[in-house]
Amino acid sequence: VTDGDQARAAADQTTVDAFHRGRFHLVQPRRGHRAGIDAMLLAAAIDGGFSGHCIDLGSGAGAAGLAVASRCPCARVTLVERDPLMLDCARQSLALPQNTALVQARIDVLACDATWRRPAREVAGLTDAMADCTIMNPPFNTPHDQATGDPLRRVAHVMESGMFEAWIRTATALTRANGILALIARPHSLRDILDALEGRFGNARIRLIHPRPQAQAIRVVVRARRGSRASLGFVPPLVLHGTEGNAFGAEADCINNGAGSLFAD
Amino acid sequence: VTDGDQARAAADQTTVDAFHRGRFHLVQPRRGHRAGIDAMLLAAAIDGGFSGHCIDLGSGAGAAGLAVASRCPCARVTLVERDPLMLDCARQSLALPQNTALVQARIDVLACDATWRRPAREVAGLTDAMADCTIMNPPFNTPHDQATGDPLRRVAHVMESGMFEAWIRTATALTRANGILALIARPHSLRDILDALEGRFGNARIRLIHPRPQAQAIRVVVRARRGSRASLGFVPPLVLHGTEGNAFGAEADCINNGAGSLFAD
Repeated sequence: VTDGDQARAAADQTTVDAFHRGRFHLVQPRRGHRAGIDAMLLAAAIDGGFSGHCIDLGSGAGAAGLAVASRCPCARVTLVERDPLMLDCARQSLALPQNTALVQARIDVLACDATWRRPAREVAGLTDAMADCTIMNPPFNTPHDQATGDPLRRVAHVMESGMFEAWIRTATALTRANGILALIARPHSLRDILDALEGRFGNARIRLIHPRPQAQAIRVVVRARRGSRASLGFVPPLVLHGTEGNAFGAEADCINNGAGSLFAD
Repeated sequence: VTDGDQARAAADQTTVDAFHRGRFHLVQPRRGHRAGIDAMLLAAAIDGGFSGHCIDLGSGAGAAGLAVASRCPCARVTLVERDPLMLDCARQSLALPQNTALVQARIDVLACDATWRRPAREVAGLTDAMADCTIMNPPFNTPHDQATGDPLRRVAHVMESGMFEAWIRTATALTRANGILALIARPHSLRDILDALEGRFGNARIRLIHPRPQAQAIRVVVRARRGSRASLGFVPPLVLHGTEGNAFGAEADCINNGAGSLFAD
């Protein structure tokens, strides 16, 4: 049994799920990280009129990248992922008959780690300044999050700081001057994110995502411009649900279905 | 004509203004920086039940510190300011007959620069760990803000970063273990603030202040705990006004008048 065989066997345990009211479908592993509102929020940071080349860095099965393609009829999208199982899902998604109209010739998949340096990236097919826009939803809920001791927590924090630095360093190389970076993360990562953006991306627009009107934010979406020196700003937050019940509010529902934009401007 | 004479002559150009629906009054210069909603927001970061010693670092005429005394009947407050004109206003405020009930023996004034190191601070009367709570509203709208050229803006940014580092370093020394730091600033300073808090204050609770429901945030209030390693969190923002008109909304009006708390917990 080779690694490839194992990956293929695991990939058999997949589901096909509809997003954007059925405008695209996604093959993803039945277990483990499954795409949902986070990927749709990230894609909604890119305006529907965007018509350039978007790189989804660390795309997983490709939910956010496909959502950008679904929102932006004139965009090209490259899904970049290192995990063979997720890459397999992404390739299966592109081959789904339900996605024919969406995919056409404008979506491709590359095997590359988000932290690789230029020589390895170029071998993988990624060249500097190739992207008009880079989007990323870096992984979290790692085992380190459950670390309780102070030393362990400190290690986890250093690892997470290093991850944002490495991913945003890669995005800096891949994104052309004046291009866009959009990312979604947990609010407590905001310091690491702002530190990594410094001198690389400016004019950051930040939108916090609250689950309910009275609850603390659970996510933050940041959109910034390559090479800008303008200050950051916080736009009004998005509240996903009302005080009670599990239904999305009007704006969140719109965004989850590919219609709304997270940053109106 | 000595410096003292000039300061006194300038201090004659003062007004006496009521805050918290007349529960305290403030002597302040007719021209220049005049206290308003910012100082009331900062004071509202301290719960009304607080009964320890609060230092208002860089107090100006003392609006925020007096507002804490007004909100917290059992608190002691020390106003710390370097500017002779503002110190004179602060002392005049404490002597106002309208403030007799507020002041009693629980408010005092010290002449000290917020950036001075321990030896100079101790001469001024400030000793390490003397505060249960430190509040600060560091100055902005300096001439540097109007700088337009890139090099000038970079200098202004470095100066502002240095200011937060220096002020928060002082607050770190003055605040006892497990004590509170509260500050108000402009949102674009959040990175410098989070950098300066690192390893000193944790469990930061952050509340953005938006002027209107659809407008970007104009202020950020941060409350953090000395020595805590807990993550930061964003509570839902405060919106000062409705979509139209100049009246405060219900919560902002409450806070401006000393009744509400910015962080309910």
